[in-house]
Amino acid sequence: MLADTEAVLLDLDGTVFQGDRLIRGAKETIASLQEAGKRIAYLSNRGNVSRKEGLEKLERHGIMVAPESLILSSTVTASFLKQHYPKAAVWPLGNRGLAQELLYTGVKIAQAPEEADFVVVTLHDKITYEELNAAFKASSAGARMIATNADKTYPDEAGQAIDVAGFIGAIEAATGRKTELVIGKPSCFMAEAALTYVQAPAEKCLIVGDSLESDIGLGRMQGMKTALVLTGNTRKEAVELLPPKRQPDYVLNSIDDLRGYL
Amino acid sequence: MLADTEAVLLDLDGTVFQGDRLIRGAKETIASLQEAGKRIAYLSNRGNVSRKEGLEKLERHGIMVAPESLILSSTVTASFLKQHYPKAAVWPLGNRGLAQELLYTGVKIAQAPEEADFVVVTLHDKITYEELNAAFKASSAGARMIATNADKTYPDEAGQAIDVAGFIGAIEAATGRKTELVIGKPSCFMAEAALTYVQAPAEKCLIVGDSLESDIGLGRMQGMKTALVLTGNTRKEAVELLPPKRQPDYVLNSIDDLRGYL
Repeated sequence: MLADTEAVLLDLDGTVFQGDRLIRGAKETIASLQEAGKRIAYLSNRGNVSRKEGLEKLERHGIMVAPESLILSSTVTASFLKQHYPKAAVWPLGNRGLAQELLYTGVKIAQAPEEADFVVVTLHDKITYEELNAAFKASSAGARMIATNADKTYPDEAGQAIDVAGFIGAIEAATGRKTELVIGKPSCFMAEAALTYVQAPAEKCLIVGDSLESDIGLGRMQGMKTALVLTGNTRKEAVELLPPKRQPDYVLNSIDDLRGYL
Repeated sequence: MLADTEAVLLDLDGTVFQGDRLIRGAKETIASLQEAGKRIAYLSNRGNVSRKEGLEKLERHGIMVAPESLILSSTVTASFLKQHYPKAAVWPLGNRGLAQELLYTGVKIAQAPEEADFVVVTLHDKITYEELNAAFKASSAGARMIATNADKTYPDEAGQAIDVAGFIGAIEAATGRKTELVIGKPSCFMAEAALTYVQAPAEKCLIVGDSLESDIGLGRMQGMKTALVLTGNTRKEAVELLPPKRQPDYVLNSIDDLRGYL
């Protein structure tokens, strides 16, 4: 599995972390991959954190990575806007990590909702009515809608919690406008950002993640090798129900199992 | 307006045509622009026709254009898939022009809905229940959804008729899945296809169309000059209600007025 692999793309939530906790063996596995000379990119659909926050979390758990190796949907959304809509003013709806990432990338933040060309929607787990309403006002006034990702729920301490899809739904229902672009995995935008960073052809990459749709789906479409870990969203039984073409190449109990292949 | 313009991007429905009828002076205006050495691209959100059908319609009205100058949302959707998802198998929902354009571009058509990686949705004004249901089955089985455009209605002989947004809504409501990408104007995908064809910087382009959102919105975001024509969807009063930054640079009664600027 790893012999002719030049680069490994690692999902974070459910693969390296469970909530704030590091998954057993994740740190040691990453160190072993680094020692074996594999290029590693960390590919996460989190759009409500900045790279700075993401790096700090990794460092708190003793994992040191190159800042450019951390590829969040907030990062890729910001790069997409900067590249394709350099004149756009953006109204962010999300935790402040999103705005930080937009500013860091050089995307202009609108002064008022009515002046925005785009609303960028991500998870906001401290959202107030005023913030939801401001995004509604921006969209009503003509701003186009982009989402960092469109996950419906994520696991919190008490079960499943409402995610980005809920905010998208709120604004779409109230304005009648549609989201025109979802940036997160399994999109080509995330895949291409990762491939550009690792500088390896897709066939020489292994993607490791807990989501059949986001992680395995991305890898399969790009011709990467795919490994599902069972430490997150997916149960083993769900894999067995899939038609062969949608199955991952490997199913691992956890990221820790990767070391056995080195 | 036209003195330092190198290229003109012309919308078709509501700008060059009203239904099957040519707008008065359109043919002569296009000829004058061609004679004046302007590069012309024809930029339409129609995703249910192929370039071949589009060229035939133009030719029937005596307008001869280079095939590559006709940039439909079906064309750009097909190119996007070919470039970013070369391994994907696609299930088209739309009039047969869509499938023709996908095949022409070399996109693989899925053999069965359940085998599709993507459903591509466009207008289908002859849709049957079986066709709608097949797209539903593809999406249910895991295919991701891309729309050529997301227009809600278009004008037919009897008023407003349901457009792509209705089909998107049907599938989203039945499957709970979201469309992840809308290709049509005002997207950067359409803009970049046009700019690549005309080989001119955006500042040297004039976009002419009847839609404030699709045509003027596209031009404004890219830094093109923008001219709204009043032969389609937009009334003059709607323009006056807009904040200055969303207004077109010029408002013309029809495409015929362009000749006065040559």
